[in-house]
Amino acid sequence: MSKGKVCLAYSGGLDTSVILAWLLEEGYEVIAFLANIGQEEDFEAAEKKALAIGATKFVVVDVRQQFVEKVCFPAIQANAIYENVYLLGTSLARPVIAEAQIKVAEENGCFAVSHGCTGKGNDQVRFELSFYALKPDVTVIAPWRDPAFFNRFAGRNDLLEYAAAKGIPVAQTKAKPWSTDENLAHISFEAGILENPDTTPPKDMWKLTVDPTDAPDKPEEFSIYFEKGLPVKLILDGGKKVITDPVELFLEANALARRNGVGRIDIVENRFIGIKSRGCYETPGLTILRSTHVDLEGLTLDREVRALRDQFVTVSYARQLYNGMYFTPECEYVRSMIPASQTTVNGVVRASCYKGTLTILGRSSETEKLYDETESSMDELTGFSPEDTSGFIAVQAIRIKKYGEAAREKGTPLTL
Amino acid sequence: MSKGKVCLAYSGGLDTSVILAWLLEEGYEVIAFLANIGQEEDFEAAEKKALAIGATKFVVVDVRQQFVEKVCFPAIQANAIYENVYLLGTSLARPVIAEAQIKVAEENGCFAVSHGCTGKGNDQVRFELSFYALKPDVTVIAPWRDPAFFNRFAGRNDLLEYAAAKGIPVAQTKAKPWSTDENLAHISFEAGILENPDTTPPKDMWKLTVDPTDAPDKPEEFSIYFEKGLPVKLILDGGKKVITDPVELFLEANALARRNGVGRIDIVENRFIGIKSRGCYETPGLTILRSTHVDLEGLTLDREVRALRDQFVTVSYARQLYNGMYFTPECEYVRSMIPASQTTVNGVVRASCYKGTLTILGRSSETEKLYDETESSMDELTGFSPEDTSGFIAVQAIRIKKYGEAAREKGTPLTL
Amino acid sequence: MSKGKVCLAYSGGLDTSVILAWLLEEGYEVIAFLANIGQEEDFEAAEKKALAIGATKFVVVDVRQQFVEKVCFPAIQANAIYENVYLLGTSLARPVIAEAQIKVAEENGCFAVSHGCTGKGNDQVRFELSFYALKPDVTVIAPWRDPAFFNRFAGRNDLLEYAAAKGIPVAQTKAKPWSTDENLAHISFEAGILENPDTTPPKDMWKLTVDPTDAPDKPEEFSIYFEKGLPVKLILDGGKKVITDPVELFLEANALARRNGVGRIDIVENRFIGIKSRGCYETPGLTILRSTHVDLEGLTLDREVRALRDQFVTVSYARQLYNGMYFTPECEYVRSMIPASQTTVNGVVRASCYKGTLTILGRSSETEKLYDETESSMDELTGFSPEDTSGFIAVQAIRIKKYGEAAREKGTPLTL
Amino acid sequence: MSKGKVCLAYSGGLDTSVILAWLLEEGYEVIAFLANIGQEEDFEAAEKKALAIGATKFVVVDVRQQFVEKVCFPAIQANAIYENVYLLGTSLARPVIAEAQIKVAEENGCFAVSHGCTGKGNDQVRFELSFYALKPDVTVIAPWRDPAFFNRFAGRNDLLEYAAAKGIPVAQTKAKPWSTDENLAHISFEAGILENPDTTPPKDMWKLTVDPTDAPDKPEEFSIYFEKGLPVKLILDGGKKVITDPVELFLEANALARRNGVGRIDIVENRFIGIKSRGCYETPGLTILRSTHVDLEGLTLDREVRALRDQFVTVSYARQLYNGMYFTPECEYVRSMIPASQTTVNGVVRASCYKGTLTILGRSSETEKLYDETESSMDELTGFSPEDTSGFIAVQAIRIKKYGEAAREKGTPLTL
Repeated sequence: MSKGKVCLAYSGGLDTSVILAWLLEEGYEVIAFLANIGQEEDFEAAEKKALAIGATKFVVVDVRQQFVEKVCFPAIQANAIYENVYLLGTSLARPVIAEAQIKVAEENGCFAVSHGCTGKGNDQVRFELSFYALKPDVTVIAPWRDPAFFNRFAGRNDLLEYAAAKGIPVAQTKAKPWSTDENLAHISFEAGILENPDTTPPKDMWKLTVDPTDAPDKPEEFSIYFEKGLPVKLILDGGKKVITDPVELFLEANALARRNGVGRIDIVENRFIGIKSRGCYETPGLTILRSTHVDLEGLTLDREVRALRDQFVTVSYARQLYNGMYFTPECEYVRSMIPASQTTVNGVVRASCYKGTLTILGRSSETEKLYDETESSMDELTGFSPEDTSGFIAVQAIRIKKYGEAAREKGTPLTL
Repeated sequence: MSKGKVCLAYSGGLDTSVILAWLLEEGYEVIAFLANIGQEEDFEAAEKKALAIGATKFVVVDVRQQFVEKVCFPAIQANAIYENVYLLGTSLARPVIAEAQIKVAEENGCFAVSHGCTGKGNDQVRFELSFYALKPDVTVIAPWRDPAFFNRFAGRNDLLEYAAAKGIPVAQTKAKPWSTDENLAHISFEAGILENPDTTPPKDMWKLTVDPTDAPDKPEEFSIYFEKGLPVKLILDGGKKVITDPVELFLEANALARRNGVGRIDIVENRFIGIKSRGCYETPGLTILRSTHVDLEGLTLDREVRALRDQFVTVSYARQLYNGMYFTPECEYVRSMIPASQTTVNGVVRASCYKGTLTILGRSSETEKLYDETESSMDELTGFSPEDTSGFIAVQAIRIKKYGEAAREKGTPLTL
Repeated sequence: MSKGKVCLAYSGGLDTSVILAWLLEEGYEVIAFLANIGQEEDFEAAEKKALAIGATKFVVVDVRQQFVEKVCFPAIQANAIYENVYLLGTSLARPVIAEAQIKVAEENGCFAVSHGCTGKGNDQVRFELSFYALKPDVTVIAPWRDPAFFNRFAGRNDLLEYAAAKGIPVAQTKAKPWSTDENLAHISFEAGILENPDTTPPKDMWKLTVDPTDAPDKPEEFSIYFEKGLPVKLILDGGKKVITDPVELFLEANALARRNGVGRIDIVENRFIGIKSRGCYETPGLTILRSTHVDLEGLTLDREVRALRDQFVTVSYARQLYNGMYFTPECEYVRSMIPASQTTVNGVVRASCYKGTLTILGRSSETEKLYDETESSMDELTGFSPEDTSGFIAVQAIRIKKYGEAAREKGTPLTL
Repeated sequence: MSKGKVCLAYSGGLDTSVILAWLLEEGYEVIAFLANIGQEEDFEAAEKKALAIGATKFVVVDVRQQFVEKVCFPAIQANAIYENVYLLGTSLARPVIAEAQIKVAEENGCFAVSHGCTGKGNDQVRFELSFYALKPDVTVIAPWRDPAFFNRFAGRNDLLEYAAAKGIPVAQTKAKPWSTDENLAHISFEAGILENPDTTPPKDMWKLTVDPTDAPDKPEEFSIYFEKGLPVKLILDGGKKVITDPVELFLEANALARRNGVGRIDIVENRFIGIKSRGCYETPGLTILRSTHVDLEGLTLDREVRALRDQFVTVSYARQLYNGMYFTPECEYVRSMIPASQTTVNGVVRASCYKGTLTILGRSSETEKLYDETESSMDELTGFSPEDTSGFIAVQAIRIKKYGEAAREKGTPLTL
């Protein structure tokens, strides 16, 4: 008798194939689930393999549009970034995949969900917290944290032997000396030889972007239009190419950045599970979209709104995303703060890509008038009188003079 | 009889030459002051001119070392950045110049200081708040905010005519269609044709850095060592060049970035005087030093210390610097928070520059052990048990499950 | 010929009566405006006096409901407080009065508005920034900052003489040795003898609340119901009195606090105009409503939402209100963050007042289930296993053990 | 053969007595440890009992001075408060006790430490994170999270039976229907009948403070002097009593508050272990010391330093203390920010207590001159000109007028 149905996040790789077989061995019925979130993947081969191993069913869910519109675009609006550098490509994908998996689990009467994440990473946390929020009574089976599993499969050889014994086909290609995770927005590289933070990634590791030294010798110009902080139009090829569909726009931004070597980073980051880890990432299109968005905010967003948003919303949102806290009260709260900050972020940014560099060429807005050319001119005197500034400075100085006086009186005059 | 001595920040240009003459005409005795803060400048010519116009004395003060060690280096430690993009090159220079000017004023018995800043910019605020803090009883003469002056000199022609009348020599070169401000750390371009935020800066505007398309075709590698967050050694040329003196190191970082086209930006920023303005900046060496410092913090700085520093210190410090609040109680307070965050930021970052791009190649630290290769490995199980993570997730989930349950009960189940 | 119509905020007191006469003398036509915001005031006498002096018209606008519902209630939702102590009673009133005055100005074709605020206080800033936001082209006439006025009226005697000359009746009662400002939410006392921050306010200064030593000898119990963070029902007299109308509820809370001596404070605060000033305040009802609201949030608000709201919204909102920034993009932004934080703040708080003390007696919520009696019980083991906590602690400890180890290795073991 | 020595935090109560016996039964040798942190306790009886049960040794460590000087006083300097209400009395004690226990463990060659905290509370986290930081290789034995223990002792009866079987004397007094934790700074009451958050605590529960209704009928006045934010002198009895020793001063502040019914609170708070719990607290002296310190900061602390400290230091520090993160890099970092904020907090506050109410009567400072009576006067015009304020407002209004204009142009004029 079955112990019940489990919905397993199945990639077709060695790990989740072994997990599938092991779950069956443990007496569960397994629904294999695979999200199409824009990764390069042979979905048919995965389906064949899952069914061959013994899955009752194989379900692919295309979440690309949701991924772009529901999470990537708001991340652009919020300028989301983790530890000054990381654009959160993996973190953004997790709630989308988790929601799809829970839906498949519920539609197929599964009491449990399972995944192949390791016990030290962020992804287990991101998936499971999302699972629990979306279906608080779900059971989570995490084999890599179950001694019955991880003691049995202590190394890659144990997995290979088990695969052989179970007749699971294994790709003949030699495993790469690092792990990757890919989606429409990015690919990550970590572990293996990258664990030494001083090892420069080999040139052939990078996958999505051309090496800057191999990129075209001429800058490529383009324009991106934003409405309420959302990218709504991308113009390339000197105006010959105009894209407005969100997913198409995102893909075209990817292609643009990829061929010009834009979007690579290499960092040591702080995982939620209090350890540090080294990651290399390619985030081509998102890098372009975020940077042009930041630029447009300079022209169209009020100074104080921007400062509040930067210090509180951007920072909180990035941390919540990174820590897998998408489906939490606090993240719902922070997300509710994004649109109100973006009502004036309307306009177009012109920019170019060249051998890894993104350069802003100019920006304009037909509707927003916060920037006033005449007013910011050094030469003209509209809007306010220079004498007003004297008063402004005098009032600012009240507190500061007192500070300087006190320092002198206490015998410790101010210095650099 | 003289109305008293005024110490004028004198650049040798048209504006401050006219101001000098006008101050004399108004009955003041003038001490001309010029800071050597690393700008390209003909100090001798300026001296000759000042004395020819009628200054009692011309004083140059070399503040380069102070500038690098007292303000640029702490800015690197704090990762200071304004509105996500601007590295504060001008802002950093102001307190250093102001302090030198006040010292010259006091040494020469001046009751007042004067400057040629316009009435709409940030610099007038930065200088004057520093003046008032350092010498609370000082009088500030700001001709561009004095109707007696600005009504008389309404345009460039008025200045030229006055110069001619006073026999002040004017450079024959045509004035550039923008203004600049230069120091050891950067040069700024603004006003003139740049006031249209959609105008791409002409290629020949940029001065400090080579155009990325003209930069060498091969990445140039280098290493930077940090101690307590401060750059202490720069190695180039495959180890043939080793620099440790702070100013030399800074200059060499400049040269490296300059020849590889690194450090250009173009933004619309929010001035303290509530208007927006467009600025183009070249900040070559500081860009390299800041980015490598950020990278090393990934390896050596505790997650939570970094998060607190990022959200509070970096943000507050940048705003204070930008707004001219260096000599204030709050900036003194924030500066006191920098060293305590940097005790572990010791190590070396390897990187390369190439046609405008800066790439991190690796990083290491002999003394700091927060990063543990074995521990972050996906394959090994030292340090903590994978089962611990189950408990960690379970406890994190308590609150989140309740949130999911409440949403279901209220008939609004959670979704993306 | 008239120089045009001015809408003057007129209180009937000596200052604004002199200003009225002076404006007329200066050639303006004056519309006298007086807001009824709940202060104790003889509106009819003021009208008679204004018209007698020469105002074209006298307009009273009753803004009490707006004041309670539009600004006091959101302040309760946000727990607004300035510098840990001050409940912002005056600040809250300013945008309401300014909006009413601008409306009167526009309805009566006034090109300018005028007020009697001094040149050192917060109120001038609060009024004028609101005026400019609501009617950017308005002219503001601030006599106490106009040398033509303040040089002429250097002291109270000058005002009295002018009043006598103009036939303006002056109240025979001796002026109190402090100034006050009163509205439905509070009364402030400042200036005069209070300027010495070490002077204890005389017992007879306090006006709205009974002295705690004279308050009843028995605690008075009551219950307040909140919906989405807004007070919706107040029950007193052992259930005999039930109030639900917002203004009535606010007034009844006032009466309750007044008779029990609740809501007095005495502080030295930091004005927006960088000086410190001493203020004494009575804020009876608002003290009760805010404190019970804070208590209910403990029961019904998620921990992280609360922390975000406390650190960002409460703090920013209070500062904006205090500085007169109600009608600004950033305050609009922050206000938009309040309702989303309050969706779960539904329930009732029971409390008592006694001789200046407010005591919480209990709280409950029929709809919100974040608090779970069984779960928080020390004795029962529902919800999660104690072993989960071991994992939680183990994961938290990863980073901390490393910190302890590093300290030991560096020869500086951790101590208190 | 012994499994090794364990240092057990032993209170003499039923729980830790059973744990002591159980540890012995499990084969450990036990060193019983009891901190004297100012709680009411029969230390001799505890010693006798521990040795009778079988402890090898009983060690009392007097940590009262450390508790006051090392943690309570900095908490006063930082105005530490959790969730607007709780003064962190228990949290403050934990690092002090943990450090003493680790020292005893090390001096007695114990490989492990043990405690009687439940598996749902904050204290287990606070103790254990401190243990791990101070001695990263320590083993922690937490019986209430060990199934071998908690399954055996499922209820109080199991404990009583085991105690009887082992000959452990049990106090004849009936257990109170709540738990308490006491130290020099406070006592907490929770669990039992208090778990219903709507149950008003019975009058006889409160222990440290007199009921406000029973307190004296006359306000009692006193003065507290601070130096660099630390209480250095308390004067009572109309000057007859002067205390300067830190511990004595703290005890006297306790006595003063106790007899006047000051310092009770009742809240529902958010535990680190994501659940809510209800707690009642008496924190007599700390309430007085913190409130007077807050008041003195009004007079002596710069506005912006205060704002930064409030928003970042106070909030972060309180959260760290509550969550048991005292010995962490981030708390060390935040603690380093306290003294720099307090250099000017020098002066004296006069206040009174009366039936639960604390009233500030006045404050002064001989050394700090940030407050300037003349300057804050409404009537006098020293320091700056009222016209300066016009400029100040005009510059502030630039951005705001633009906001108002944009709103009008977009057809949505600003309103409350």
